[in-house]
Amino acid sequence: MAEHGSSACSHPSERKYKIALCQLFVSKNKLENIRHARELLEAAADGGAKLILLPEMWNCPYSNELFSLFAEEIDADDLSGSPSCGMLAEVSRSRKVTLVGGSIPERFGSHLYSTCCVFGSNGKLRARHRKVHLFDVDIPGQLTFKESATLTAGDELTIVDTDVGLLGIGICHDIRFPELAILCAERGADVICYLAAFEMNTGPLFWEVLQKARALDNQLYVATCSPARDLTINHAAWGHSTVVGPFGEILATTGHEEAVVFADIDYAYIREVRLRLQLEKQKRKDMYQLVCVSNCIRHI
Amino acid sequence: MAEHGSSACSHPSERKYKIALCQLFVSKNKLENIRHARELLEAAADGGAKLILLPEMWNCPYSNELFSLFAEEIDADDLSGSPSCGMLAEVSRSRKVTLVGGSIPERFGSHLYSTCCVFGSNGKLRARHRKVHLFDVDIPGQLTFKESATLTAGDELTIVDTDVGLLGIGICHDIRFPELAILCAERGADVICYLAAFEMNTGPLFWEVLQKARALDNQLYVATCSPARDLTINHAAWGHSTVVGPFGEILATTGHEEAVVFADIDYAYIREVRLRLQLEKQKRKDMYQLVCVSNCIRHI
Repeated sequence: MAEHGSSACSHPSERKYKIALCQLFVSKNKLENIRHARELLEAAADGGAKLILLPEMWNCPYSNELFSLFAEEIDADDLSGSPSCGMLAEVSRSRKVTLVGGSIPERFGSHLYSTCCVFGSNGKLRARHRKVHLFDVDIPGQLTFKESATLTAGDELTIVDTDVGLLGIGICHDIRFPELAILCAERGADVICYLAAFEMNTGPLFWEVLQKARALDNQLYVATCSPARDLTINHAAWGHSTVVGPFGEILATTGHEEAVVFADIDYAYIREVRLRLQLEKQKRKDMYQLVCVSNCIRHI
Repeated sequence: MAEHGSSACSHPSERKYKIALCQLFVSKNKLENIRHARELLEAAADGGAKLILLPEMWNCPYSNELFSLFAEEIDADDLSGSPSCGMLAEVSRSRKVTLVGGSIPERFGSHLYSTCCVFGSNGKLRARHRKVHLFDVDIPGQLTFKESATLTAGDELTIVDTDVGLLGIGICHDIRFPELAILCAERGADVICYLAAFEMNTGPLFWEVLQKARALDNQLYVATCSPARDLTINHAAWGHSTVVGPFGEILATTGHEEAVVFADIDYAYIREVRLRLQLEKQKRKDMYQLVCVSNCIRHI
């Protein structure tokens, strides 16, 4: 169910609003992380943002050893078991903002997921995206990480209809796979939000070009949100949370320190870009088609 | 049929060789273009290149008005009707090099195509790729171009097994569609060659990021070849012919003037990159699949 109450413009394709990315410094203290995330979210709302993002694993240092300790159960009808989501619900309701709440380790039965919860501007949990592509890498002497050792992969892509338009959701390594962005775009996404803790090897190589390519190929906005860099942990984040426009142009970005990054989103601009260069029409669907196997997208 | 006679290494996955991109200045005189292209191809062969590329529309200025005048019929069994392809066959045979012969306007019955002919190092025409995605754009006051007014789109993707490995072929606007690169990669392409005359508006915006993204997403080499810039024509080319490695890194590039660009290709490096980060395995084919409708790829 969509909630279009507080949109500035009446027609979705003409919506303009401010987005904010909270590049949060994540400590080893969960309650402190929740308190501090609230501060940044409120600063973003104070700055006029209607859509606010938190980074991947914002309540927990990025470490396979810690995911289980920091995990929460998320019951959409009763968030009392999840102090992290409880805070997100409160802020989204009290400030009337849409929150793409980064990700946290979610406990579900015997499984752990990296889960993004999206809250509507009425404070309701609108969608839950579980990271679909887990990051397993082995570059000897440089980087070895096996997310699949502790996390379970989700098996649905997520596109969610909110007060600020149709949002596609991806978590970190999800950005490496162009298929996710194509499927979200084909189903009408205006913005794809990637919550990500790209690390110091892959960040400089891939981060910028992947964001630009997903935006450019699909003629939509891409917003990415990273934790601030903490050099005391193994998996220090690259930072550089960024908003990219439908021509692949960087609209706002930052370095590696804590920051709230603002940018203006204008859906009329997407329509204009798509009218001038009609990529969707020019795709050769008579030759190739990206198909969803077993209804792989939840369109909420 | 593959021709593996002159490869430096016995095992395809260990092949190392030099590639060259001939960023040719294209004049309004076809015979002069053919003569001059031969000069650059021979310079590239003299420089040790085993795989050599020419740009899109290398025998003809980039203009809807001229395509028909410069067009040639291409009969694989008798190239006497195509002086452009005749020259390519001679050079590839005499210098024992694989040529991805840019594109020329091809006349076939009442149709015109932008066609890339690939010649094996024995001088035989190995494959013919007809541009699949035509470039129609309308940016008022800045850029209006309608390729589909004169050209017909091909309806097959092309992957060709040559002396220097499996090559995927794309022409200019074909690079805008990630599906082509994904399908080529899934069928084993080592290098995707894009022959392109990106123009002065889209070049600075898209050219570099698209090349990097196609290489990075598919963990293979991307080689692009543009004409040199001629500011006396409407559709002046961006230039910047480039070779990109499987990490999205630029291995060799140039500016907008005439040049022969060399780079080293090493297939062992592709295998190494793919071993360290196993993107192909990490794709969620249980969730999404890119399917070829009606056998859209010719694998030659």
